[in-house]
Amino acid sequence: MAPATKSYPVIKIKGGKRSDERDTVVDEGQLTIFLNGQKVVTLSCTPKEEKYLALGYLFSEGIVKGREEIKRVLSYPQREEVRVFTKREVKLSGDFLQTAVLTSGCGKGKSFKSLEKINPLEDILLNFDFSLTPSEILSLMREFDSKSTLFKRTGGVHGAALADRERILLFAEDIGRHNAVDKVLGKALMKKIILKDKLILSSGRISSDLLVKVWRAGLSLICSRSAPTGKALDLAKNLGVTVVGFVRGSRMNVYTYPARIATSE
Amino acid sequence: MAPATKSYPVIKIKGGKRSDERDTVVDEGQLTIFLNGQKVVTLSCTPKEEKYLALGYLFSEGIVKGREEIKRVLSYPQREEVRVFTKREVKLSGDFLQTAVLTSGCGKGKSFKSLEKINPLEDILLNFDFSLTPSEILSLMREFDSKSTLFKRTGGVHGAALADRERILLFAEDIGRHNAVDKVLGKALMKKIILKDKLILSSGRISSDLLVKVWRAGLSLICSRSAPTGKALDLAKNLGVTVVGFVRGSRMNVYTYPARIATSE
Repeated sequence: MAPATKSYPVIKIKGGKRSDERDTVVDEGQLTIFLNGQKVVTLSCTPKEEKYLALGYLFSEGIVKGREEIKRVLSYPQREEVRVFTKREVKLSGDFLQTAVLTSGCGKGKSFKSLEKINPLEDILLNFDFSLTPSEILSLMREFDSKSTLFKRTGGVHGAALADRERILLFAEDIGRHNAVDKVLGKALMKKIILKDKLILSSGRISSDLLVKVWRAGLSLICSRSAPTGKALDLAKNLGVTVVGFVRGSRMNVYTYPARIATSE
Repeated sequence: MAPATKSYPVIKIKGGKRSDERDTVVDEGQLTIFLNGQKVVTLSCTPKEEKYLALGYLFSEGIVKGREEIKRVLSYPQREEVRVFTKREVKLSGDFLQTAVLTSGCGKGKSFKSLEKINPLEDILLNFDFSLTPSEILSLMREFDSKSTLFKRTGGVHGAALADRERILLFAEDIGRHNAVDKVLGKALMKKIILKDKLILSSGRISSDLLVKVWRAGLSLICSRSAPTGKALDLAKNLGVTVVGFVRGSRMNVYTYPARIATSE
């Protein structure tokens, strides 16, 4: 794959004045993920950390259940391919491609109709031991901003991070907001980081598919600088996930399960 | 389909103060597009103007060539389906789904490898008769902002517009930036608006797939508030499209074919 940025000539116009300059733009690559020799999906993405993207995708889409299933991960940058092999056979649902939904966001396709039918709250033990304060969230978001170097250079990417209450542990950027989350989750998987007492930070909109990715990975708290969708909030209620949106400056909106946000500072 | 927004209870935290309020969030629906009875794609989208979305998608993906091919468009909101029928048989490329790429942006899947092989500049007559000035662009972007009512209410959508030099002719909003462009193109198709002397305005990142959509529709100028990707600029050079990015306040960046931007005001 190509490097993550390119230099381009540009004519900058400002207040009627024109100047010839060079600009750094974010690059776009493709990645095809294979599982045990079978093609799973092709993603448009930022050509960086492809192994983590592949693993995180398989993990957050529920295809691979955990680190212990992974036998080998081979990356072929020239061919824009990552090939993942599992210890035992992992069945790709026969209608995986048939039911794929091209999403509004960052191109991860899945229909969640089956998820809406079940009631996970009956099945899972909600983890409310993990909570943090608004000022901890604001502090993490400031650290998040300081790490967004590719965004600062190009203005064309999304960021995602895994954090505990004190600091950001993992960070990734990608032209796709789903990809950024998948890269972080893939890295967490490889590093065997326990996820249930962590949160996800994102720069992008919280849509239903992103919400489900985070939930599938075992996380129960997501904070974003952007807006959630109504469908994502419906699912968050059903799945027991705390959604905090519009984390900007000194403010934020807590949409679901505020018990995880300690507001009595 | 559900209405485009929902009201949600929210705890707003600002400067350490907490208040219980209600918030308007953008909703998320799905739309499955059928062509002559055959399923083409399922998109996550904002449930509004589904007919235009379906037509614009088929048009901008090169499946339907023009208004004259369309026989009938039937919308089934309850089933989240639009069924398009053409006068003659339109062949869906056998590998339409096989080669689908889940994009970084708003979920329109197509591999453009075939496009990169051809050299459209040899095949098409570039239209440089249409040009406009930076202040015309800035004025259009201000009008664009004033029309973005769903964004103002929810902060969770992208906008797209078709404009001539003087004013915005068509406008649409959607959780997906591709969908917003497709809705505008679908409406233009139905209204038989000539596109070659128009431009597209977008709030979102200009990725390669968005660039190709606009080019396929016959447009040669796209302006966005956001960044372009390197791959989109490579394609724009090859396809003869003028890309203007970061249109904000009094400034903008002209990346390709500046001949269409008259800077000698």
